[in-house]
Amino acid sequence: MEGIAPFHVMDILARARQMEAGGRDVVHMEVGEPDFSTPQPIIDAGIASLQQGRTHYTPATGLPELRHAISDFYQQHYATHVAPERIVVTPGASGALQLILGILVNPGEKVLMPDPGYPCNRHMVRLLDAEAVELGVTGEENFELSTARVKEAWDEKTRALMLATPANPTGRTLRSGVIADLYDTVIESGGALIVDEIYQGLVYGQKSQSALVLGEKDLFVVNSFSKYFGMTGWRVGWIVAPEEYVPLLDRLAQNIFLAASTTAQYGALAAFQPQTLEILEQRREVFRQRRDYLYSALDDMGFGLAGKPEGAFYIYADVSRFSDDSFEFSARLLEEAGVAITPGRDFGSFNQERYVRFAYTTGLDRLQEGVARIKAFCGTTTNR
Amino acid sequence: MEGIAPFHVMDILARARQMEAGGRDVVHMEVGEPDFSTPQPIIDAGIASLQQGRTHYTPATGLPELRHAISDFYQQHYATHVAPERIVVTPGASGALQLILGILVNPGEKVLMPDPGYPCNRHMVRLLDAEAVELGVTGEENFELSTARVKEAWDEKTRALMLATPANPTGRTLRSGVIADLYDTVIESGGALIVDEIYQGLVYGQKSQSALVLGEKDLFVVNSFSKYFGMTGWRVGWIVAPEEYVPLLDRLAQNIFLAASTTAQYGALAAFQPQTLEILEQRREVFRQRRDYLYSALDDMGFGLAGKPEGAFYIYADVSRFSDDSFEFSARLLEEAGVAITPGRDFGSFNQERYVRFAYTTGLDRLQEGVARIKAFCGTTTNR
Repeated sequence: MEGIAPFHVMDILARARQMEAGGRDVVHMEVGEPDFSTPQPIIDAGIASLQQGRTHYTPATGLPELRHAISDFYQQHYATHVAPERIVVTPGASGALQLILGILVNPGEKVLMPDPGYPCNRHMVRLLDAEAVELGVTGEENFELSTARVKEAWDEKTRALMLATPANPTGRTLRSGVIADLYDTVIESGGALIVDEIYQGLVYGQKSQSALVLGEKDLFVVNSFSKYFGMTGWRVGWIVAPEEYVPLLDRLAQNIFLAASTTAQYGALAAFQPQTLEILEQRREVFRQRRDYLYSALDDMGFGLAGKPEGAFYIYADVSRFSDDSFEFSARLLEEAGVAITPGRDFGSFNQERYVRFAYTTGLDRLQEGVARIKAFCGTTTNR
Repeated sequence: MEGIAPFHVMDILARARQMEAGGRDVVHMEVGEPDFSTPQPIIDAGIASLQQGRTHYTPATGLPELRHAISDFYQQHYATHVAPERIVVTPGASGALQLILGILVNPGEKVLMPDPGYPCNRHMVRLLDAEAVELGVTGEENFELSTARVKEAWDEKTRALMLATPANPTGRTLRSGVIADLYDTVIESGGALIVDEIYQGLVYGQKSQSALVLGEKDLFVVNSFSKYFGMTGWRVGWIVAPEEYVPLLDRLAQNIFLAASTTAQYGALAAFQPQTLEILEQRREVFRQRRDYLYSALDDMGFGLAGKPEGAFYIYADVSRFSDDSFEFSARLLEEAGVAITPGRDFGSFNQERYVRFAYTTGLDRLQEGVARIKAFCGTTTNR
């Protein structure tokens, strides 16, 4: 457990709750979960399955009809044929990552990943007694890894490269040419590419994409019903794997979680229906408006921003103008201004002391209140 | 993955489905899941939570009100005070075991466990690059481990002993004196005791018990809403841990699954209600009748049975009278007689070639049909 750092945002959240219990108003810009409830058609499908008494285990790889529905989704929205047999339904993206790393990585081996990144990735690698090799990426390079960096870091112990697009905490999408080149590099090196697409549907001003167009060989895609589809608490996601790996994923799933929740899987069957997608597209537009507002506001205040994030619901901002210590900046912003954000420390070590993550998972009125407070706070806090 | 054997019962099940698709009738005595749906009050509670839009993440340790309800359950039914702060809600017992092993066991360390036992236990230990030390136990010793065996096997690399009561595949409960002595032995050795109580409510002719009466120090109890409470597909269980370990369990839970399904947790809140318990007690009586019938029938036919199993819904039977190879016996019983059972191979290596597991998770009429087929099959199949 030593290699598994606590999430500092949890301390922030606990302190925020404490302040709220004491009567303080806190603007929450730290939460990595959509503020919307699950769309009604999905809720109705979950309820219907319970009314029908569908409460037994599903197969470890998921309900066959859900695997088919996900396959159809790729065909319709990404013009990509993905055989249902390549899809494994999991208890959220967490379960998906655990399965993939569990079958690919042996103790002592290495997995490359960009820093900053989602902290659970490196923790899951460490739990397997393997090494997470974190490659620092800067805002100036759009937080994208180059093939040169990957080639340089790759050695005979390296098993895989993990990427995310759109990414947490940066909100950035990887350009399709960049992913294609990285995929080629990984395949040439004899490894596997794991692409986290859990924010796939949440992109603004550009077309949503999938790495699945690149091929099948040694490519693992992780997705989830949590973020775009608004099903966080249901705990259901999926893997698209090369077909020959599915029996291994199946076997490991039987051992570590048996199957995803049956109700969640029946609910997810309604996620791709037109009336659900209509609701989700309206929500996406709301997220876009929030992003545009918050990005401009942070830019105006002098936060360091490296291009407008194209997706997810995060803005990763450089606080150097106000502080040398983003952790202390986050703590003081909460205590003095009543705004909760996540310090860079939660996402890696590279430049973490300069960065914080703002999440726009709260209404525009609350974001405006938060911005007003940040402005007042920063007006009295300068590093220069 | 090499140390993680496939479940042979899955091949049996797949072949049974194939036979059924071809028009053959198969009696299913291989399934480790109650045939009953979830009790209606639990279903209603799950539906109500969905109608109220409760679809966000819960804390990683579970809904506070569910942790309190579980605490009350121990007070009311086991006269044991277990502080809610010691309870961690998990995605099934699988998630519970993963968390406990994840925080206790380092690579290269050892965990002792009886053989036969639930196969996922040894697989999860191996996934952590640790060693599962399986101690063979015989029917003659009621499948109970002695303190002498544990002391003999314990070395400086040993971190924990895992027990289950009632146990899968034997259906046997451990006598309370036996658990108490084993607990003392483990504590004296400086290790931890992990007790799987997922079949806790399913005991017949004796009072259901909990190892929690023994103390708190280095004692981890795993439980689940799946078996007695009939919530298999919901995926929700829990851990009772020493309080000082809860922050570590919390941190690991955040990384490997975030939280159990929210709907499942709201459903589980209704599991302890009187009207639910009334349904569950009726079902327990049905299981008892099935056990009595099947045990007598197998005994009459000449299967080797070491005392009547007190719990769960399994009978572990010695087939030596009919075959030297329980795996082949299971395969032939399916092909020739249309009865699906689980070969001993799925539960370990000790004496596995002599044993098979019968599950009474199907109605009495189907069990009678199964018994008639087994009788006819065994009449033509003798090893002596």
